[in-house]
Amino acid sequence: MDNFADKLIAAIRRTGNPCVVGLDPRLELIPDFIVDQYRDLAAPEAVRNILSHFHRLIIDQVAGLVPAVKPQIAFFEQYGLGGLQAFSDTIGYARSRGLVVIGDAKRNDIGSTAEAYAKAFLGGTDFRGRKLAAFEVDCVTVSPFLGKDSLEPFVNACRDHGKGMFILVKTSNPGSGDLQDQRLLDGGVRLYEHLARIVDELGGAVVGNTGYSSVGAVVGATYPQEAQAIRALMPRAIILVPGYGAQGGTGHSAALAFNPDSLGAVVSASRSITFPHKLNDIGREPFEQLVRERLNAMIADVSAALVARFKP
Amino acid sequence: MDNFADKLIAAIRRTGNPCVVGLDPRLELIPDFIVDQYRDLAAPEAVRNILSHFHRLIIDQVAGLVPAVKPQIAFFEQYGLGGLQAFSDTIGYARSRGLVVIGDAKRNDIGSTAEAYAKAFLGGTDFRGRKLAAFEVDCVTVSPFLGKDSLEPFVNACRDHGKGMFILVKTSNPGSGDLQDQRLLDGGVRLYEHLARIVDELGGAVVGNTGYSSVGAVVGATYPQEAQAIRALMPRAIILVPGYGAQGGTGHSAALAFNPDSLGAVVSASRSITFPHKLNDIGREPFEQLVRERLNAMIADVSAALVARFKP
Repeated sequence: MDNFADKLIAAIRRTGNPCVVGLDPRLELIPDFIVDQYRDLAAPEAVRNILSHFHRLIIDQVAGLVPAVKPQIAFFEQYGLGGLQAFSDTIGYARSRGLVVIGDAKRNDIGSTAEAYAKAFLGGTDFRGRKLAAFEVDCVTVSPFLGKDSLEPFVNACRDHGKGMFILVKTSNPGSGDLQDQRLLDGGVRLYEHLARIVDELGGAVVGNTGYSSVGAVVGATYPQEAQAIRALMPRAIILVPGYGAQGGTGHSAALAFNPDSLGAVVSASRSITFPHKLNDIGREPFEQLVRERLNAMIADVSAALVARFKP
Repeated sequence: MDNFADKLIAAIRRTGNPCVVGLDPRLELIPDFIVDQYRDLAAPEAVRNILSHFHRLIIDQVAGLVPAVKPQIAFFEQYGLGGLQAFSDTIGYARSRGLVVIGDAKRNDIGSTAEAYAKAFLGGTDFRGRKLAAFEVDCVTVSPFLGKDSLEPFVNACRDHGKGMFILVKTSNPGSGDLQDQRLLDGGVRLYEHLARIVDELGGAVVGNTGYSSVGAVVGATYPQEAQAIRALMPRAIILVPGYGAQGGTGHSAALAFNPDSLGAVVSASRSITFPHKLNDIGREPFEQLVRERLNAMIADVSAALVARFKP
């Protein structure tokens, strides 16, 4: 069985950068040259076609440039069944273009229900001897709030199917401290430090040839100091760093999540890459060019920050 | 605008009990007399039809007897798009039969993404002037891990659309203590007590005529002592108590989550009600009878426990 961490590290080495394009669709921001093609369809078919078309176009711009894309399922789920069909289409197309797909779902529940989520995104569910796998991604984000026994079904799926998971440790939003920054009476550590230790412990079961584990962590680019503390507690974990770009994270702040080998993290931006235009009546070629310009600027910024940090 | 808490309390008064039937489909446990009708269909249509048929049958048994049903979306999502179509069918049918529908989704994310989830389950999303609302339920379970700012979009949706939410505070699984039981340096309180205070604070915005709030909490029937402590900290919140039945919770333990008015909580059982049979070749009428027997036994047990606690 392949190891997810090895696969992701290989994709980072192949593309030469650790940048991830987040896919957070908002119908009101999709250019007219796509939307207009589906005026005659009713929902949910119109929604499915618009979202799938838009993401094929984005994926065609970014494939080969970056190791991975990160579709955020909430933005598809809000459009109902047509949206989720587009989610299925989009992850299938991204995988066919050789991109690692990070399913940003932040799912979790108690034991047997967590197993169901692990099947939905990582393993597939048996039906009459065939595998239903409409939402199969390479790795998924999960919430640790319900405790270790809720995370174990995902770790098992990672081991059994060569998949990966990123456990929320310190999220990028202003209110993340309400719970995650709380100091615990037991040892005086912050809750995010307690979680980093759980990530490290669970990750031991799925370490690949690169020395990295398929159990990673989410740590927002908006909290660089916390990222350094967390990094030290789980040296084998790959950190998914959201919050670059629109949320205020920079290449410099994201670089603090990396190991001295310039690996160990991926940095994600969504809106700033996929919605770079001001007006929806933009033409196809100018739109595609803007997407590539924004992405190349991000790649240059993150790469320069890594060189500045690790090759002084 | 109606208030969700008032609506739920009215349904509890109308049926005379606070029991909720959880809908956690597992294809391998659905009786043959349903599955056999869809042998000629391929997935995802077969899956959609089997799951929708099974839940129509369950809903027909329980409508009028209990105030609410609680479909667990993970068990639908594991079957892909056909499963989610059945989720949409099932919540629509349950609402048409007058049942309050609790969408057990444990969703959440940062601000704008939390808004997307709130639209998916509570508000609906605009598309060409119409509302896409494939998964519209009366209330939804949400995770507090990302902090107060991640909960606010759901509170706003509750206020704007007459909906409700149950915030995870102390879950029913053995490992829930890993995070939720941690004592905080700040005041020495447990994390679940800290969360109960957040529930109480957020709930102030959506208190109904009954004095109860549309912001409730999830507290497992497997932790009765914790339930009492949590109850005291958020007197206006309705507690959703899962874990009755198969997980080991009893009427006696569940009763500790209630207020002295014998209200303020609903108690949920899933497998023990919907999969009461031993062999899948059971006939339709014996199956329906078993479901009603199990449910009536649960109603009697919970009702007796409430009488024992509050009318000595």
